[in-house]
Amino acid sequence: MKLGILGGGQLGRMLALAAHPLGIEPVIVDPKPECSARAVAPVHCLDWLDDGVPELLADCDAITYEFENVPVELVHRLDEGDRVRPGAEVLAETQDRLREKALLSRLGFPVPRHARVDTEAELQAAVQDIGLPAVLKTRRMGYDGRGQRMLRAPADVTRAWVELGGVPLILEQCIAFDREVSIVAVRSLAGEVRFWPLTQNRHVDGILRISRAPADCHAHVLERGQAWVRRLLEDTGYVGVVAVEFFACGDEWIANEIACRVHNSGHWTDMGAVTSQFENHVRAVSGLPLGSTRALGAAAMVNLIGAPTRAEPLLEIPGVRPHFYGKSPAPGRKLGHVSLLANEGVELEQRLRDVVDRVGDPATTGALQADD
Amino acid sequence: MKLGILGGGQLGRMLALAAHPLGIEPVIVDPKPECSARAVAPVHCLDWLDDGVPELLADCDAITYEFENVPVELVHRLDEGDRVRPGAEVLAETQDRLREKALLSRLGFPVPRHARVDTEAELQAAVQDIGLPAVLKTRRMGYDGRGQRMLRAPADVTRAWVELGGVPLILEQCIAFDREVSIVAVRSLAGEVRFWPLTQNRHVDGILRISRAPADCHAHVLERGQAWVRRLLEDTGYVGVVAVEFFACGDEWIANEIACRVHNSGHWTDMGAVTSQFENHVRAVSGLPLGSTRALGAAAMVNLIGAPTRAEPLLEIPGVRPHFYGKSPAPGRKLGHVSLLANEGVELEQRLRDVVDRVGDPATTGALQADD
Repeated sequence: MKLGILGGGQLGRMLALAAHPLGIEPVIVDPKPECSARAVAPVHCLDWLDDGVPELLADCDAITYEFENVPVELVHRLDEGDRVRPGAEVLAETQDRLREKALLSRLGFPVPRHARVDTEAELQAAVQDIGLPAVLKTRRMGYDGRGQRMLRAPADVTRAWVELGGVPLILEQCIAFDREVSIVAVRSLAGEVRFWPLTQNRHVDGILRISRAPADCHAHVLERGQAWVRRLLEDTGYVGVVAVEFFACGDEWIANEIACRVHNSGHWTDMGAVTSQFENHVRAVSGLPLGSTRALGAAAMVNLIGAPTRAEPLLEIPGVRPHFYGKSPAPGRKLGHVSLLANEGVELEQRLRDVVDRVGDPATTGALQADD
Repeated sequence: MKLGILGGGQLGRMLALAAHPLGIEPVIVDPKPECSARAVAPVHCLDWLDDGVPELLADCDAITYEFENVPVELVHRLDEGDRVRPGAEVLAETQDRLREKALLSRLGFPVPRHARVDTEAELQAAVQDIGLPAVLKTRRMGYDGRGQRMLRAPADVTRAWVELGGVPLILEQCIAFDREVSIVAVRSLAGEVRFWPLTQNRHVDGILRISRAPADCHAHVLERGQAWVRRLLEDTGYVGVVAVEFFACGDEWIANEIACRVHNSGHWTDMGAVTSQFENHVRAVSGLPLGSTRALGAAAMVNLIGAPTRAEPLLEIPGVRPHFYGKSPAPGRKLGHVSLLANEGVELEQRLRDVVDRVGDPATTGALQADD
């Protein structure tokens, strides 16, 4: 059995590592020769729209992707026999923040107030309508806080327009949330849906720093959230892992965005759940039955961002498994993550403090303190 | 950091899969081009005593091996700066069943009565001394029951001599054991020793079929066994994972053999323990701190032997993770294993029955029934 993977970054790497034991051969395509996955599987260096890509992946039983900005045109070219999972339609809808909001609204998810912004006049009108603070975002290709500007005062509006204008934009109401949570779920080709326990996330500068799971939540609130996500998966005929991020204001949840792929807020599952998001994504897109999403204890994940981190001090902490992606350091770049597992919450928090201390990144330390 | 691995079979493959997340680059040598590890890391196809091997591994920070029959001569050639772990001395002692028995006896392990056999006359004398039943074994290169003959009646003695004679042999008392257990342990470069929970094993035709852990055992019996293994590790300056197999007759344990490497009876740790034997072996030989050996529940392992097994029926069972090694089927060949994890023993036994039913191998079914 062969699985084509579009993208050889850390997510492609972790998918490939999950595919090998299942007897599934990963075939990875990435335009960058020095990508993270090259150490663990063959990576074919081709541009996305190169004719060699469909040829290379012609004999794959299934094809998936590790990032949501893969060209929809390529997915259409590869999608004979519905081999690309998740499919082209949901990918196209989530690549554009405006269409994504429309999809979420149609399915009953609460979303922030928002407006389409293509001109400076539309921006001014949207600010009048939505009020400040608000967030101006590019509709396409944003991630890890890129392509976003926070508008707090009228002066910010013009500056943000100068910095971002000229491409399709969206203005979104700024939500004063208590916490950020994400639901990570998977749907099999046969239509079975499973949820991992709720994840609570802490971002700094638009980049995820720390996740914890299972997060506390009233059962009826979690069930409502899971019902929305189930509707998304069933309505779109989704196959694979999805993550939906929410802003939580008490029991009110407002959907922020959908990731049509394995997601950073699910990385804790590589140590903290019976089956990781990577293994279940591979199982799902390959048409195999899903594994248990049960948590094995109190789990957490700390991203390693920007600067290299030494393995040895981290490995001294019990219940810790780092994953270094083999990428060269750069500001804001995700170079690895540390998964943590403990018997219960107090032990987990102690280990989390130890990890964050040893990582020594000020933003991550800030993320931890913000939860104290 | 680079880790040389001598041997690209399934153990080399699983060591490489454990090395990648730790940011350790595996460099594998195997004389066979079509070995199991080739899918997950670069494998260099060289004969063991080729001058290219020391050259290739010259810049490795550490070197280990996945099977105990690697030529000691090669280990000596590679061992500048004590880079080969476990070391050449313990490897040489365990490659010869007679020297292995001497090592075990010296360290206080009870061993079966045994005698060196180089001639037919010595065999007859040994049978007189030890009695029947007894097992005649080649002193070197035996594994999975190969190079062994059971002697029950006088007629077996001559036949076994005809079949095995001409190489150094050992005659061992046949132990009427209640069960087989193994202690899997790891010692770090800094000298820390950790034990995984006791494993109980069931062999058929000399090949391991099923392991379960944690196995029941009186605390003082387990502590005595662990004290022996600790002495072995400390006395030999051992670095890495070791497995010692015992025949258990009630609370009396008799040591059977030492495996100076990750071992099939530790495969359950890939799903059933916080840190697998593969990760801890890589950590140990790379000079890194050890991870927790705590069990995550009731665990088991079923070997997939000889005939191909379909993934799908196995993946339907909760708490199951198969690992297919990518090897071509052959009688008696280990093609993969299935790890199982459950909350407690009754649930585990149900899942184990389901796995064994779906594997459909008569010898494995027999191994399960033998424990009923």
